[in-house]
Amino acid sequence: MNTRILLKGKDLLGIKDLSTEEIMLLLNSATSFKEILGRDIKKVPTLRGRTVVNLFFEPSTRTRTSFELAAKRLSTDVVNFSGPSSSIVKGESLLDTALTVQALGADLVIIRHSSSGVPHMLSRHLRASVINAGDGTNEHPTQALLDAFTILEKKGRIEGLRIAIVGDILHSRVAKSNIYCLRKLGAEVRLIGPATLLPRWFGEFEGVKVYHDLETGIEGADVIMMLRLQLERQGTGFFPTTDEYFKEWGLTKKKLSAAKPDAIVMHPGPMNRGIEIASEVADGPNSVILEQVTNGLAVRMAVMYHLEERKEE
Amino acid sequence: MNTRILLKGKDLLGIKDLSTEEIMLLLNSATSFKEILGRDIKKVPTLRGRTVVNLFFEPSTRTRTSFELAAKRLSTDVVNFSGPSSSIVKGESLLDTALTVQALGADLVIIRHSSSGVPHMLSRHLRASVINAGDGTNEHPTQALLDAFTILEKKGRIEGLRIAIVGDILHSRVAKSNIYCLRKLGAEVRLIGPATLLPRWFGEFEGVKVYHDLETGIEGADVIMMLRLQLERQGTGFFPTTDEYFKEWGLTKKKLSAAKPDAIVMHPGPMNRGIEIASEVADGPNSVILEQVTNGLAVRMAVMYHLEERKEE
Amino acid sequence: MNTRILLKGKDLLGIKDLSTEEIMLLLNSATSFKEILGRDIKKVPTLRGRTVVNLFFEPSTRTRTSFELAAKRLSTDVVNFSGPSSSIVKGESLLDTALTVQALGADLVIIRHSSSGVPHMLSRHLRASVINAGDGTNEHPTQALLDAFTILEKKGRIEGLRIAIVGDILHSRVAKSNIYCLRKLGAEVRLIGPATLLPRWFGEFEGVKVYHDLETGIEGADVIMMLRLQLERQGTGFFPTTDEYFKEWGLTKKKLSAAKPDAIVMHPGPMNRGIEIASEVADGPNSVILEQVTNGLAVRMAVMYHLEERKEE
Repeated sequence: MNTRILLKGKDLLGIKDLSTEEIMLLLNSATSFKEILGRDIKKVPTLRGRTVVNLFFEPSTRTRTSFELAAKRLSTDVVNFSGPSSSIVKGESLLDTALTVQALGADLVIIRHSSSGVPHMLSRHLRASVINAGDGTNEHPTQALLDAFTILEKKGRIEGLRIAIVGDILHSRVAKSNIYCLRKLGAEVRLIGPATLLPRWFGEFEGVKVYHDLETGIEGADVIMMLRLQLERQGTGFFPTTDEYFKEWGLTKKKLSAAKPDAIVMHPGPMNRGIEIASEVADGPNSVILEQVTNGLAVRMAVMYHLEERKEE
Repeated sequence: MNTRILLKGKDLLGIKDLSTEEIMLLLNSATSFKEILGRDIKKVPTLRGRTVVNLFFEPSTRTRTSFELAAKRLSTDVVNFSGPSSSIVKGESLLDTALTVQALGADLVIIRHSSSGVPHMLSRHLRASVINAGDGTNEHPTQALLDAFTILEKKGRIEGLRIAIVGDILHSRVAKSNIYCLRKLGAEVRLIGPATLLPRWFGEFEGVKVYHDLETGIEGADVIMMLRLQLERQGTGFFPTTDEYFKEWGLTKKKLSAAKPDAIVMHPGPMNRGIEIASEVADGPNSVILEQVTNGLAVRMAVMYHLEERKEE
Repeated sequence: MNTRILLKGKDLLGIKDLSTEEIMLLLNSATSFKEILGRDIKKVPTLRGRTVVNLFFEPSTRTRTSFELAAKRLSTDVVNFSGPSSSIVKGESLLDTALTVQALGADLVIIRHSSSGVPHMLSRHLRASVINAGDGTNEHPTQALLDAFTILEKKGRIEGLRIAIVGDILHSRVAKSNIYCLRKLGAEVRLIGPATLLPRWFGEFEGVKVYHDLETGIEGADVIMMLRLQLERQGTGFFPTTDEYFKEWGLTKKKLSAAKPDAIVMHPGPMNRGIEIASEVADGPNSVILEQVTNGLAVRMAVMYHLEERKEE
């Protein structure tokens, strides 16, 4: 790995702001970190003495734990500010909380918030590096990076691949970050979902096509990314029932046969089995869903490593 | 300690499945680990770089913290998946959660669940080692091991001792694991409690006798294990009121005099003072209740150590 | 630092019990620890293998995290007993919980509780050191120490300074610990607030004066400490509305001009902006509020260090 290349920004706010070179820097480093995760002693002293704070305003065990473990494997000290016993219940402003976290010595602040743009606001006020772990319906950049890493690992390349993203694209920060990432890396992106959850204007992005029929959309696909359906949207006009949704948009073995035989199936988790994905697919030979989880650790280690590396120059 | 002896299974699901030799292996190692706990630096690098995940679906500070500290003293990285901010609120299936935990790199998964058999189900699907920290009304094996360790420490042997277990045996996983453990180690076991909470068929186990009167039951006992009364069962037909329960089944100094003068009194905690046990006994000279807590750490370190040791062969 | 001086007690329960020499010992050591916090590797092996338990019965992210990070930077193992998943929900007595924590190997128990005197009660029953992290309306000694540290850092001395404390003095453990601390160190202390929240008898302490008008009270002050208003007291007779409160007691730039031009403004956090303090002051050049947060880490490291140091003699 060429140590002359550095990330340009002090933060990771979204894929939108990254150059292709920066994305590849992170993915290449993730390869080295993944090798460490396969060892008995899954730990390196790289960031010993640095402090990572998980500032989660939305519940998320997977992502928070993934960051927590990634941080521990780099030998940092990690603390969690999430949960109901947080002083956020005392009505402190979000920015004051973040400034306090910084004053407590945080080098890296991992933020998840239900409002789009919160990480960007914090980024402007903090000297510490901010990592966006999901903001509203905007971006979830480390998810897109781990998805790209997984595709690279399985397919050897991303350029020229036909990649289908299926479900509630409209509200999905996972979809948005993936669209940016996959387009920067040269994939043909297909967005598939009901018209209510996928307005046609999404098709106006270069290299992105919109489909309102699952089997047509995934025809010949190399990769199929299923999105989690937010069940709380049921009956709000976005879709009728989960049964109807499954019939139309749920990925079954039969529907999967429209894709390439060696297509890989991805899901950011947690899955709604029998709603957006059938168990026969989730647990089938094309699924790489659990490998995505493992790769998430490697990618997050790479992100933390490179954000800290910048500070040493 | 003879390093040629290894645990047979990859998991610790219950005492029922352990041989006497395996139980003694764990108890002997716990002696070495207890010595470490007495030092200023209560920590060994034995399992550095391994990952332990506490997957608790029932609240339990004591047991979770005991495992957490045992894991830290072996220098592992520990994360907790318990609590209300867990993504379990998003409706992910239990097995998917456990598979995710494994994909995040867990070497040891500590599971507590209100349904009997959950650890066994996970054990079949995970490569990681599963440690049962209490499943429904089935087993709580590390509690029985720490109890046996405490008895050995105090009495020098278990074989031939008269050991009374008092309270709600019917619903108690602590009682069940202790019955298996103490019988395998050769004790005479007496179960004592109201008929509603202790059906007579329990007496059909070899070496186990059932009593429905406290003072007769503990007569000549070397060890008395009091069980925690689940207060939420009050008024459900199992027992009338806590006052009535205390009068009949609560261990007082006066009732204790029926046991041997040097009998030890145990309780898995947390205690209901004035319900199953009088404070004069809980805090009296026969009580070893707080030593049980300390021994829990040593025993849990031994369990984790031996489960990991198997993997190196 | 003269290593011959040691803290007299095994616990830190309040400033009231400390000698001026003990206070200065802690503040001097905090200077050394603060230097460590400025390094890339903000960590020393000083207390490796020791166990710190945060036993928080009131929600507090800031204070709990400050202790957690201070403990991690001394290389201890830390566990949190706070939060809703604690076995405190099972009705275990407070003392039993603390004794269990000690039996789990806690060397230092950090306690926060809504009842005054709880740390003192625990102190009598535990061999472990107890650090009071706030008890009812009694004391919050580490807050007073970090405040004194901050003043010393900014002003070079405390003796002879005019220090104003503004707000709900009656219910404030922060105010009480600060009054003790600042008087022991020779400051002139002025207490300022509405008569309902600041009875005149406070003025009977030597060297303490009571004011019921903000601008008169802070006249010529070197330091102004704003207290957090407990919003839940609104409409209970203590004060009418938060708007009224701000008009009368809120610190604005205009009112601040009554103090010395280089007066520093402090707040223990979390702030109610627009209630006890205007944003123009909180974020202004006189504010040292975020430095207080950083200094809290250094002071808490010093406290833990000296309590453990005593045990080695």
